[in-house]
Amino acid sequence: MKKSIELHKETFLEELQEFLKIPSISAVSDHKSDVEKGAKWVATALEKTGMENIEVIETDGHPIVYADWLHADGQPTILIYGHYDVQPADPLDLWETPPFDPVIRDNKLFARGATDDKGQLFIHMKAVELLMKENGKLPVNVKFCIEGEEEIASPNLGPFITDHTEKLAADAVVISDTSFIKEGLPAICTSLRGALAMEVNVKTANTDLHSGVYGGGVPNAVHSLVYLLDSLHNQDGTIAVEGFYEGVPEVTNELREEIAQIPSDEEEMKNDLGLTALFGEEGFSFKEQTGIRPTLELNGISGGYQGDGIKTIVPSEATGKISCRLVGEQDPQRVYEQIEKHLNENLPAGTTMTVNQFIQARPVSLDSNDPMIQKAADAYEEVYGVRALFPKEGGSIPIVEVFARVLQAPVVLMGFGLPSENLHAPNEHFHIENFSKGIETVCTYFKSLS
Amino acid sequence: MKKSIELHKETFLEELQEFLKIPSISAVSDHKSDVEKGAKWVATALEKTGMENIEVIETDGHPIVYADWLHADGQPTILIYGHYDVQPADPLDLWETPPFDPVIRDNKLFARGATDDKGQLFIHMKAVELLMKENGKLPVNVKFCIEGEEEIASPNLGPFITDHTEKLAADAVVISDTSFIKEGLPAICTSLRGALAMEVNVKTANTDLHSGVYGGGVPNAVHSLVYLLDSLHNQDGTIAVEGFYEGVPEVTNELREEIAQIPSDEEEMKNDLGLTALFGEEGFSFKEQTGIRPTLELNGISGGYQGDGIKTIVPSEATGKISCRLVGEQDPQRVYEQIEKHLNENLPAGTTMTVNQFIQARPVSLDSNDPMIQKAADAYEEVYGVRALFPKEGGSIPIVEVFARVLQAPVVLMGFGLPSENLHAPNEHFHIENFSKGIETVCTYFKSLS
Repeated sequence: MKKSIELHKETFLEELQEFLKIPSISAVSDHKSDVEKGAKWVATALEKTGMENIEVIETDGHPIVYADWLHADGQPTILIYGHYDVQPADPLDLWETPPFDPVIRDNKLFARGATDDKGQLFIHMKAVELLMKENGKLPVNVKFCIEGEEEIASPNLGPFITDHTEKLAADAVVISDTSFIKEGLPAICTSLRGALAMEVNVKTANTDLHSGVYGGGVPNAVHSLVYLLDSLHNQDGTIAVEGFYEGVPEVTNELREEIAQIPSDEEEMKNDLGLTALFGEEGFSFKEQTGIRPTLELNGISGGYQGDGIKTIVPSEATGKISCRLVGEQDPQRVYEQIEKHLNENLPAGTTMTVNQFIQARPVSLDSNDPMIQKAADAYEEVYGVRALFPKEGGSIPIVEVFARVLQAPVVLMGFGLPSENLHAPNEHFHIENFSKGIETVCTYFKSLS
Repeated sequence: MKKSIELHKETFLEELQEFLKIPSISAVSDHKSDVEKGAKWVATALEKTGMENIEVIETDGHPIVYADWLHADGQPTILIYGHYDVQPADPLDLWETPPFDPVIRDNKLFARGATDDKGQLFIHMKAVELLMKENGKLPVNVKFCIEGEEEIASPNLGPFITDHTEKLAADAVVISDTSFIKEGLPAICTSLRGALAMEVNVKTANTDLHSGVYGGGVPNAVHSLVYLLDSLHNQDGTIAVEGFYEGVPEVTNELREEIAQIPSDEEEMKNDLGLTALFGEEGFSFKEQTGIRPTLELNGISGGYQGDGIKTIVPSEATGKISCRLVGEQDPQRVYEQIEKHLNENLPAGTTMTVNQFIQARPVSLDSNDPMIQKAADAYEEVYGVRALFPKEGGSIPIVEVFARVLQAPVVLMGFGLPSENLHAPNEHFHIENFSKGIETVCTYFKSLS
């Protein structure tokens, strides 16, 4: 199989680069037709692999692509999930090469979506293609369910899964949208934080006002917003929203020991990222803070004059973006309402506010002892010579919780990314070595299941 | 003279519209050549009025235009100051017609700079032209000193005045860059607040980070900035910077009575501007707050993701713009240093900061009993049938204090704008009635001085 991968690698990478050229940014409405294009590209590519029953299924948002091959009688059925949408690419000026003009440098493929998730999704498509080429059939039954709304928290895939439990029924859901611990040290993530996101817009007047004529005598929308946003945290790094920590599990010594087993180097990370200090609640390590503790982050802010120099105005409008990562039994809807209540209670005089909710996802925990997960760890060991670890990740893949709950199947998070690959940031890339070895690992895994 | 103004009004307005088409935005470096164009336009227009010794004087920034006519032997010399630069025009989408495409609607001329200050400056150019046409000479000696950096606080005109006291020597400096109290109620401003402005940039990492992988465990530049900016004010609306109020005069009953004489309607203003509440320190009226109290305003803020929807990042960089209005003996440099010290002392862990200063101007008070100011009030009375009042304005014209101090001459702030004319905001405009009556008032004033 390794030989076969080497033989086709160049062609595969050329195909992947075509995929990466499509700016399928799901969050930005101007890119709607690009996201559509991404769906069609996936459907065409799946056809090429030998998959059957290919459908591009319209939703209220971006399409879902389905395909299957169900001729491995008596063998388990694997549902492969991935997403063809990508994060926005700004700030554009920080990219060394344009985000949608893929380029290979130092054996890495640079482009928006290279690792999250087009490159990782493509591993499965090519694994299936090679297995099919080798034997004219697959060792297991395979279904693909590929969405275009992962980066906006899968608003339509959840209902689709609930409405199509039979169509999607599987013995395991396999997803490659996570990362190794570090180069050469594979990981199968067994815990993901939940998420919610919102936008807060405040207004104080019907127009920006001259800061000389009105300054000091009228409310200022930027003042109001910084007051509101700053009120969300306490001085010690904890979150000041009443009730926010309800449902957050107690941190036991057992849990701490489990987390401590995952190697990490805080000093190296600080150096790599140019951090002069870490952040967080008193008494928690970085891994604990990002793995098992909830957060409230300000993702962006804007208001008033933002150009060169100064404009002496009293701004009349300002907007902030907030997102949370949730753990344990925290309920996203309840946390959203608590934050909204906090904002309303702290709203400065003379300020009106609107709040829009974007994302909602429950946290999820997976059992690392499940045979489907253990066999995946075996496959990594065979290809990489190192057994995968089972870390608890800070990120959210909202749909994982839905797959696990609705399909009642183990979810196997076989990541092939690296934490240093700038996902969601400028200069996103994917190590080509893990692309090749990823195909080999997936082939090995599927064979081991039959 | 009134007839003569009516006769030429159409031509004058056409000329003014040509002037207003030039996007001479001094704050934005991309507009440097437009500002240059503005200077040349002024020089050419001054030539047409009959002025002599016209010079476009280069500075380290934008040019100063000088001209004079000094043949009124034995008569006083008037130095006319104005500025041909304008504020930035954004947010562009709030303009009903494009800011640099002047248009007349409802007897108002709409364009960026219509009232601040191209329209008001043009009054003096046309007054001189008509006086010259009428008699072949002027009743007083006249000097023009027109700059292109008023909206960025005149960094080069101050030194120019100090270096050219003889060239600029005058018995009065006349400036039209302020407003009436309201329509039909003229004003000669006798107090201007000082100003200072700065930009604060904070950084926490060398790139934006994924809020799932890193969120809660690393510093967030937007958190740091909202914390810093919010720390500048106390809950009661006062400014929390240590030493900020040094040099702020005590508010006497006399001063309060003087201010109370200027009519104002807070309810009407609130309605016009869509305000649901006013703002300020306990126990001060709006007019006191904006006329004799200092401020610290946030003029703009930006950081992280600002597009549609959400991007789940931990932002690595954020910027805020701050400006102050100063009163009494407050020293801009000292206040700047106090704010910088406050920011440094409150800087959150893991955050680096740079602060850039843009503007510095001292507050100024003028004597309303000066004959040069009283004769201007007479001229308003003759033309408008109402004697001008002497309000204390909240805005800053930094160069006024320099003119008064360095040239040791009374400064006469003969405003012809209206407070409702959206200066520094979208849909800036100038009432054509005040353009015509302004020319008449200036002609009357100059004649009364000889």
